[in-house]
Amino acid sequence: MTLKAEFVNPFLEATVSVLKTMAHVEPIPGKPYIKKENSATGDISGIVGISGETEGSLCITFTKECILLIISRMFGEEQKGISEEVKDAVGELTNMISGDSRRRLEEMGHHFLGSIPSVISGEGHEVKHITKGPILSIPFSTEGGNFTVEVCFK
Amino acid sequence: MTLKAEFVNPFLEATVSVLKTMAHVEPIPGKPYIKKENSATGDISGIVGISGETEGSLCITFTKECILLIISRMFGEEQKGISEEVKDAVGELTNMISGDSRRRLEEMGHHFLGSIPSVISGEGHEVKHITKGPILSIPFSTEGGNFTVEVCFK
Repeated sequence: MTLKAEFVNPFLEATVSVLKTMAHVEPIPGKPYIKKENSATGDISGIVGISGETEGSLCITFTKECILLIISRMFGEEQKGISEEVKDAVGELTNMISGDSRRRLEEMGHHFLGSIPSVISGEGHEVKHITKGPILSIPFSTEGGNFTVEVCFK
Repeated sequence: MTLKAEFVNPFLEATVSVLKTMAHVEPIPGKPYIKKENSATGDISGIVGISGETEGSLCITFTKECILLIISRMFGEEQKGISEEVKDAVGELTNMISGDSRRRLEEMGHHFLGSIPSVISGEGHEVKHITKGPILSIPFSTEGGNFTVEVCFK
């Protein structure tokens, strides 16, 4: 399966919508691009598998500064470090972005299933997608720093 | 969905079978247990989502020493560090263990789908499963050290 251009918007719009609703943060999307190198580096990531029409995965990778701003806004209380509550909130946001993206894809006639999200923490960890297909990368910026949404299919 | 006891063997046997076939390493399974704390720590992990009958995920977490032994045997050449080839091989092993587990579950009448695996690298990273359900943890030991297979469902 090639990555269709029509697949960009559901993931982009779901990300903006979920962060706006849940955390009162409006992330500014940069130009989405297709990349060949298949890894992202960050301090905390949410990963969720996609199956159904084809196999894939969705990964959201944040710098520490960026996630602390987002979760501080979400909780209405300043977060000073990557606590268990912050990790759980990243899992919840990943779940919601995955669900909202799939709902938008469904409206376009594409049926996908989700899985249980995993949250990875560890300074400067790397997430590598194991696929020979292209990877869609959408960079976002916030007042607190940057994060990246990556989507890949088989 | 609760984690059924009958679900333990497919994952345990698939792990032993794949490592034996692919890497000539026969890992010794410890006693599988259900845990409430929901994270695993290691130096390199393979993660793959599960969907279908229910949502879940499978995670295999290795220490650096352990994966270097396994991949050295797999390639027939000593591996000295976590190279791109080692990461790809972890993805391949994750994919095969996920596929073989699902084949064994299928024989028992349980139908699950896989997704694209992600490989996480970063010394001492933590993988947290975002589920309220129990997590099945199967510890394995090899001559090169330990690794853990974790399976969770919704």
